[in-house]
Amino acid sequence: MPELDGNFDKRVERSKAKVLAETYRQLAASGISGVSIDEIAKHSGVSKTTIYRHWPSRSALLIDACSRLGGAMEAPDTGSLKGDLQLLLAALADQLSSANWSSVYPSIIDAAERDPELREMQAALHCGFMEPFSAAIERARTRGDMAAACETSDVIGMAVGSLFFRRWFSRDEITAATVTTTLEIIMMAVQPA
Amino acid sequence: MPELDGNFDKRVERSKAKVLAETYRQLAASGISGVSIDEIAKHSGVSKTTIYRHWPSRSALLIDACSRLGGAMEAPDTGSLKGDLQLLLAALADQLSSANWSSVYPSIIDAAERDPELREMQAALHCGFMEPFSAAIERARTRGDMAAACETSDVIGMAVGSLFFRRWFSRDEITAATVTTTLEIIMMAVQPA
Repeated sequence: MPELDGNFDKRVERSKAKVLAETYRQLAASGISGVSIDEIAKHSGVSKTTIYRHWPSRSALLIDACSRLGGAMEAPDTGSLKGDLQLLLAALADQLSSANWSSVYPSIIDAAERDPELREMQAALHCGFMEPFSAAIERARTRGDMAAACETSDVIGMAVGSLFFRRWFSRDEITAATVTTTLEIIMMAVQPA
Repeated sequence: MPELDGNFDKRVERSKAKVLAETYRQLAASGISGVSIDEIAKHSGVSKTTIYRHWPSRSALLIDACSRLGGAMEAPDTGSLKGDLQLLLAALADQLSSANWSSVYPSIIDAAERDPELREMQAALHCGFMEPFSAAIERARTRGDMAAACETSDVIGMAVGSLFFRRWFSRDEITAATVTTTLEIIMMAVQPA
């Protein structure tokens, strides 16, 4: 049964990797709506039959590819909320300006408006992106460094929301000063009375 | 020359209106990437030749249709920044929860990542959306109600950004409490020393 030996596993991994690489390329070039299985087969050299053996549908492939998007942000623990948020916002500003996912993400947001499967995937991706922010805020809360009335979701919404707003809506440049100002406003808002 | 009489003008207006109505329907149903001239011709009963006589390209039609999106927000002038922002944020919260454009806008944002013409249109649309916010903040500045260091773009980025973040990214519900909290944080940040 040669199909079950180690070489077979390696071949499977190699063909999956080729398909994913081509999917990323198409995602970066034209967003979710530009990804086509025909084109992936053509450029990856992997047949459509094989692609559909690994992923039952175009959605399944998109979900798999998109869920691997986004470099994991490191979760800093400097001992202060200001220190943690400074590092997190600076890293986010950097990714928004340069990372591939920042030009792909709007197509995921768009697709999530109409496709429940992609909406679920976007929710999971979002939770992953926000996890280090939530963790830093929760640690500050445990230390007593947060006003009790301050909801974690409000702090994240303002901090991350203002950077997302600049990246995709106003398209103003995101500078070191943007990060500093955002941080100052947040710190004013969260301090316990 | 019957082509130049008033009936001709009316016929032109009627066929343009039919095309635009069908374009809106497709935009609302599937975003920019789902808009097809073939389908518009089929459902509006206006021939492709006539459509292309009014709009030279699919992009031109999309730009025309999208630039009419978004109910004009009223520009309040209550005499205080807090009063103005309260009304503006409540109106925005309402539109984000119910207006058609809020499910179409991500497809415009996505298209603007790659299409320079649509990017220009999105920039104009964005300026229109933000105009009442800028006006309210600039009036407050003239009255001396704003800290000098507070940039208008930072205030808008935090206020509007946090609502946009909830609508399209975290998909948390936007409640009256969201508006109140956002407003309180903004007011803390903008007060002159």
